[in-house]
Amino acid sequence: MSVDLGARPWDQLFARHVAGDTGDQITAILNQSGATDAITLSGGFPHPETFPTQAIAESFPRVLEQSVALQYSPTAGLPGLRDWFAGWLGAQEGVRPAENELCITSGGMEGIGLISRCVLDPGDRVVVEGPTFFGALVGFQRTMTQVEAVPVDDDGLDVSALERLLATSSGPVPKIVYVIPDFQNPSGLSMSVERRHALVALARRHGILIVEDVAYRELGFDGERRPSLWALGPDVVAQVGTFAKTFAPGIRMGWVAAPAELVGQLLRAKQNTDQCTGALGQLLLEDYGRSGRFDQGIAFSRKFYRERRDIMVDALRTHLPEDMTFTRPLGGFFSWITAPAHLDTVALQKQALDEKVTYVPGAAFYPDGRGQNQLRLAYSRVPDEKITEGVRKLASVLTRAGGA
Amino acid sequence: MSVDLGARPWDQLFARHVAGDTGDQITAILNQSGATDAITLSGGFPHPETFPTQAIAESFPRVLEQSVALQYSPTAGLPGLRDWFAGWLGAQEGVRPAENELCITSGGMEGIGLISRCVLDPGDRVVVEGPTFFGALVGFQRTMTQVEAVPVDDDGLDVSALERLLATSSGPVPKIVYVIPDFQNPSGLSMSVERRHALVALARRHGILIVEDVAYRELGFDGERRPSLWALGPDVVAQVGTFAKTFAPGIRMGWVAAPAELVGQLLRAKQNTDQCTGALGQLLLEDYGRSGRFDQGIAFSRKFYRERRDIMVDALRTHLPEDMTFTRPLGGFFSWITAPAHLDTVALQKQALDEKVTYVPGAAFYPDGRGQNQLRLAYSRVPDEKITEGVRKLASVLTRAGGA
Repeated sequence: MSVDLGARPWDQLFARHVAGDTGDQITAILNQSGATDAITLSGGFPHPETFPTQAIAESFPRVLEQSVALQYSPTAGLPGLRDWFAGWLGAQEGVRPAENELCITSGGMEGIGLISRCVLDPGDRVVVEGPTFFGALVGFQRTMTQVEAVPVDDDGLDVSALERLLATSSGPVPKIVYVIPDFQNPSGLSMSVERRHALVALARRHGILIVEDVAYRELGFDGERRPSLWALGPDVVAQVGTFAKTFAPGIRMGWVAAPAELVGQLLRAKQNTDQCTGALGQLLLEDYGRSGRFDQGIAFSRKFYRERRDIMVDALRTHLPEDMTFTRPLGGFFSWITAPAHLDTVALQKQALDEKVTYVPGAAFYPDGRGQNQLRLAYSRVPDEKITEGVRKLASVLTRAGGA
Repeated sequence: MSVDLGARPWDQLFARHVAGDTGDQITAILNQSGATDAITLSGGFPHPETFPTQAIAESFPRVLEQSVALQYSPTAGLPGLRDWFAGWLGAQEGVRPAENELCITSGGMEGIGLISRCVLDPGDRVVVEGPTFFGALVGFQRTMTQVEAVPVDDDGLDVSALERLLATSSGPVPKIVYVIPDFQNPSGLSMSVERRHALVALARRHGILIVEDVAYRELGFDGERRPSLWALGPDVVAQVGTFAKTFAPGIRMGWVAAPAELVGQLLRAKQNTDQCTGALGQLLLEDYGRSGRFDQGIAFSRKFYRERRDIMVDALRTHLPEDMTFTRPLGGFFSWITAPAHLDTVALQKQALDEKVTYVPGAAFYPDGRGQNQLRLAYSRVPDEKITEGVRKLASVLTRAGGA
């Protein structure tokens, strides 16, 4: 590696946000949790058993015959996929996005990134849940915005706390509130219906864009379905979705449903990422959706992940020390553990690795150094029989540390 | 459409660069050239006959069997594809990118976008060829940089003119020089070997990152191959490539080969776009590459587009008024026409559309309002027999306007 780019040191070439990038810290934390010979309760990947491999194999010849399959496609997505999906979303949510209110993306994170680039200037304020998805956190921080976390409890984001923050802080009104209302990553908790209404009203009152990440929304375990924020406030909410959990992450796809003014800007910004989402993948998803197997796949996944949730929660009940709490998620991939305040889950990663078990330390999910006594466990991809063993190993590490 | 986002007008939500976005003008120009019942000499799409449809159909079952096909994959790309492609590039260029000098992207434009976001701050300077690819132009302008164009002649970018610009201008040294050295979009011209050496030396002297776009590099018609800028200066050049012209645009894929310091930043930035390029597409490309059909496909495409180039050049020779010039490209998709100074090719779009023929006005390819008497023609996708007819129609429009 050279130190310089010709006459200029590299650090003088990079944009200012690169020097101030706090993502390094999170990356370091995540890298430590990636060991492959361990029971990985760290990774939030979906399980391959939920992938529609057979359906894709069957529809592939049909799809490849279409003349648009290998060509560039419209930035907003292929008309056929957009039509099927707008109908599907309309049936689920009670609101169908209009033609100009929907954009197909290359995954949920692309949606968050596009919104950030269209809305945020350095110095702007963004509010997130504490804890929240670290990918979004790093994305917001890269725009040199001020990211503040509002607490989450059993009813999701504490809207009263957000209201107090808005009333008492002296800076500009935040531009974005980013929330994961259903089976949140990492806490597994969901926002109550009452708070959803309150948040939409608050956003209208202050002119704040709610970015609603619905990555786990379809993976509820008990049939209860709360209204999405977007359905409650399509005028102030951008719903960001991914097909990584309902189709497959190896074909990058997601969506943004949002007010037309914003979608128009996202389409222009997308011309500076991949210009369009791959047509072949869009046709495969449309075929899967129209065949009815999309809904069957979701039903399968709900049952599949519920069984794993049960195994993990049983193991946590049995093995976790009594002075630690864990969440029992009603959907999604994660349980969230809170240990006594003196425990440092970043430092404990090494001991856990010695025991061949990984997790993600809580600090990765906050913008402000909190979460040092918390950690996230995922039951989504590890083999069934390993969940209990992994929790047992982890619990022994935590028990030893707790007694210190 | 609502005027406001709750209590805030939309225009106060968007980032500052959105208000100053000059992309609008280019978008308007491009939209006018998109009519579907006309002979479209405007679009720079590859021809479906060059797509490896049969090869993909054959390799698909093999690829789908692999456990990684539908899962998330490493941000830098799957090891197998990276290994094949690093070897392929090494054989072509005489330099093999090291492990940490290569990143698989979701198309060439994603590479340009990632580099922009890692390097450019508002107010920074970027130098491009005049004319240049409008997608890159809009991408740079969205970062609120100052974009300046240096002239292109039959030997490509005028390096002496760039040297004079650097010597005489009072602003900061430009951070990026963006060039398309081979069969440039839109001019069809290539950079001489001598100028390539001179540009790399100049970049080293001033500490400027050369962004080399090799979108059309493999599509040369006469077997001559000049050294790439990246091969001449791997310490100061980021080579941005796309597989859209050598595989298929419907599977979004490209690469950046660059100094490790830069690639490391690009990988972090890519975690805020699609996080990883789709694994399914990567496996399909690797299979295609290792089977040897990638090289066969390139040989086919060269012959295929050369025939079309010949048809267009013959038609231009026959029909274009004598006071207009056109380029005879030695590769790629485009010929570039220069009419007498008083002609306005934006205004003439309407008359051309009445004649059912489309082109892209030259103004879209400059950052500074030049090119009003120029236009780009593409022979890549229009049916053979329509090329001559389209040129004849266009020539009649230009002839009538020239006499005015």
